[in-house]
Amino acid sequence: PAKPRSRRQRWEVKPSEMSRNTLNPIRAIVDGMKLIPNPAKPMISLSIGDPTVFGNLPTDAAVLQAMKDAIDSQRFNGYAPSVGYLRSRQAVANFCSRPEAPLEAEDVILTSGCSQAIELSIGVLCNPGDNILVPRPGFSLYKTLAISMGIEVKLYDLLPEKSWEIDLQHLESLVDERTSCLIVTNPSNPCGSVFSREHLQNILTVASKLCVPILADEIYSDMVSSSGPSLASLSSEVPVLACGGLAKRWLVPGWRMGWILIHDRNRVFGSEIRQGLVRLSQRILGACTVVQGALESILNDTPPGFYSSTISCLQSNAEICFSELSAVPGLNPVMPSGAMYLMVGIEMDHFPEFQNDVDFTERLVTEQSVFCLPASAFEYPDFFRIVLTVPEELMLEACGRIREFCRAWYRPPSCDGNDLDQ
Amino acid sequence: PAKPRSRRQRWEVKPSEMSRNTLNPIRAIVDGMKLIPNPAKPMISLSIGDPTVFGNLPTDAAVLQAMKDAIDSQRFNGYAPSVGYLRSRQAVANFCSRPEAPLEAEDVILTSGCSQAIELSIGVLCNPGDNILVPRPGFSLYKTLAISMGIEVKLYDLLPEKSWEIDLQHLESLVDERTSCLIVTNPSNPCGSVFSREHLQNILTVASKLCVPILADEIYSDMVSSSGPSLASLSSEVPVLACGGLAKRWLVPGWRMGWILIHDRNRVFGSEIRQGLVRLSQRILGACTVVQGALESILNDTPPGFYSSTISCLQSNAEICFSELSAVPGLNPVMPSGAMYLMVGIEMDHFPEFQNDVDFTERLVTEQSVFCLPASAFEYPDFFRIVLTVPEELMLEACGRIREFCRAWYRPPSCDGNDLDQ
Ligand SMILES: Cc1ncc(COP(=O)(O)O)c(C=O)c1O
Ligand SMILES: Cc1ncc(COP(=O)(O)O)c(C=O)c1O
Repeated sequence: PAKPRSRRQRWEVKPSEMSRNTLNPIRAIVDGMKLIPNPAKPMISLSIGDPTVFGNLPTDAAVLQAMKDAIDSQRFNGYAPSVGYLRSRQAVANFCSRPEAPLEAEDVILTSGCSQAIELSIGVLCNPGDNILVPRPGFSLYKTLAISMGIEVKLYDLLPEKSWEIDLQHLESLVDERTSCLIVTNPSNPCGSVFSREHLQNILTVASKLCVPILADEIYSDMVSSSGPSLASLSSEVPVLACGGLAKRWLVPGWRMGWILIHDRNRVFGSEIRQGLVRLSQRILGACTVVQGALESILNDTPPGFYSSTISCLQSNAEICFSELSAVPGLNPVMPSGAMYLMVGIEMDHFPEFQNDVDFTERLVTEQSVFCLPASAFEYPDFFRIVLTVPEELMLEACGRIREFCRAWYRPPSCDGNDLDQ
Repeated sequence: PAKPRSRRQRWEVKPSEMSRNTLNPIRAIVDGMKLIPNPAKPMISLSIGDPTVFGNLPTDAAVLQAMKDAIDSQRFNGYAPSVGYLRSRQAVANFCSRPEAPLEAEDVILTSGCSQAIELSIGVLCNPGDNILVPRPGFSLYKTLAISMGIEVKLYDLLPEKSWEIDLQHLESLVDERTSCLIVTNPSNPCGSVFSREHLQNILTVASKLCVPILADEIYSDMVSSSGPSLASLSSEVPVLACGGLAKRWLVPGWRMGWILIHDRNRVFGSEIRQGLVRLSQRILGACTVVQGALESILNDTPPGFYSSTISCLQSNAEICFSELSAVPGLNPVMPSGAMYLMVGIEMDHFPEFQNDVDFTERLVTEQSVFCLPASAFEYPDFFRIVLTVPEELMLEACGRIREFCRAWYRPPSCDGNDLDQ
């Protein structure tokens, strides 16, 4: 070039805006807490949505065998197509297909965990400046991803008094021309709620009226006490990207096997969205080929008893936890019907010692060595979330300690005017 | 809200700009080619950088055993930290550490393949509107990722006549204030070149003068006939993110195990870039825990003979291919010294029947059932790339067919003025 361009004169390397805008609210909150357990009591951590940590819920032997067979075959060491092996996609299609919502291999894209399924789905549907509808309380990754992509997040309310159903009026009020995606988490993290067929139909009616496609996060699908329909099976009009994976139901979250199911019987997505997903999948090639190679056998050969025994463990813990904590002054547990969580409301008025849920759960660690995630991490203060994947005796022990803690700090209603209103 | 917001009145779902800007040049070129082999000759595909496709280069038994042990242990089913298990990071640090460039576990971030290592590295260093320096010819993923992130790509030349060394003057002329990263691929895909210590030092001198950090793509490191130093080991001043992984050297590209090594002895990156990488790693949690669990053993227990036998196979094929094609009129092969590729220049003047490298390689399929990637896919027309991971007899057979093809189409120099200039 004719004249020299300006150049840096000294080292100055700063992290990108995108990296600075990638915020993990759970980390932000937990890292700010002083989590020093009571040395007299062994720690019970009910904070992480990882069903493997206590060792009481191993995956099935058939799942492990499928992996070892895949390794021994030596057929799954090379690159797979970026959307996954055709045969593995076919296996997922067969497993997830329903008469009302049939799936072919080409409707399935394999990803690195459900997280990447969500990333690609938001990534294909939304432009910077668009907005997406996200449940409150809800799983924090949606916001983390959206904000880092320059997408606005609009939080719609779930109603604890209605088993965490969506406040559809509130949801509707948030929609505008730049709303490019409605995220529905069912069953829910952190609520453990499972929507009824009727409620799902109402959600679809709203989505259809507002012409907003749905990202259905169904990573906990079928982890329910009585199985209900999937969103996509109830509408052939509303286009749905359903995200799922092996993480929770097969109890192997570290294996990073997820998928996107493309439901588009009304041909709204058409070939363009499909091609967009394929293009995005080529960026980093997500899913490990060994797990892909094992997938068909994992889905077909895991005995039904494996799933049902996980569910009964979760349900029994939910019942224990709900009944124990219902009897605790100042706490309002909400009975779940799926996933692996239970949300507990804190009547903060009765715990004047504590400023908020973060304060409350921090002290619960200090005094009782029980750690529950403050629901501020899910944009829902004054609640905390309990993970139900623990062995029964620990569930009981934890509930007992929570009771002791609450009894110590609970203050009965005082007699001023405010309290009379409650 | 007081007045109703405007809303969509009908379905209209379009793929995002980012997804439309995620372009894979290899796919774009290959999908546009008519690849119909000659039915009389079995197809020999020398196009894909996947060393597993011919079955002659299986991974080592120790690698498979490490995986099966990891599965049997059942200790690697849960979530790992987003940057990987500490112990696995430590194993990579130990394996890659050199006295001049020591590494600790905290300098290592595990990723879903080297591709995600590159994605996170570009993602943390560059903002939209910045530009990055990318080799020509070069691996296409850099541009694919950069463009989709709104980052400009400036291609710097490699010089075939100097064993594909960087044209440092050209490189320097491209740098401006928005240049946020210099990508150096060594050993190179597609060139198979390995830079000398001196050339690496010259590159570092330029980077240091221009204050541009380096992304060193070293996925082919140590896949070389005589081993040379890594970039980071030659400078304690220039900050380097070195990207690597198991894909090529351990012959398991599908397993998606990659890493970033943070070399920052001058503390230019400081804690900010590290934290930025950690934040980005939390988006989708990349690497499969089974492979992570096996990593220490894979790195420590693979017998040295495994690596050397891969290298001698590659080198022997390189020699065969180079000597065979050197004798072919109109072709100019460039002898590689590493990685698993060999580039061949086409004297297009002597093949007037063909418009360009795409045309040439397409007809090579039609007539001889040999498929080589036209180097247009690497921004380098009039060359094609040969993959060297094939069994020797196929290498010979492919070279024979290429010779036959060239002999049929080669036109000797005509006697007009232009040719006298050559
Ligand atoms: C609602 C929900 N969606 C998605 C995920 C992520 O799943 P994966 O681990 O497969 O990425 C989780 C994990 O906790 C979750 O709770
Ligand atoms: C130079 C280069 N870098 C990175 C990669 C990607 O490696 P991985 O498969 O581990 O993502 C490749 C793959 O061919 C490559 O050639």
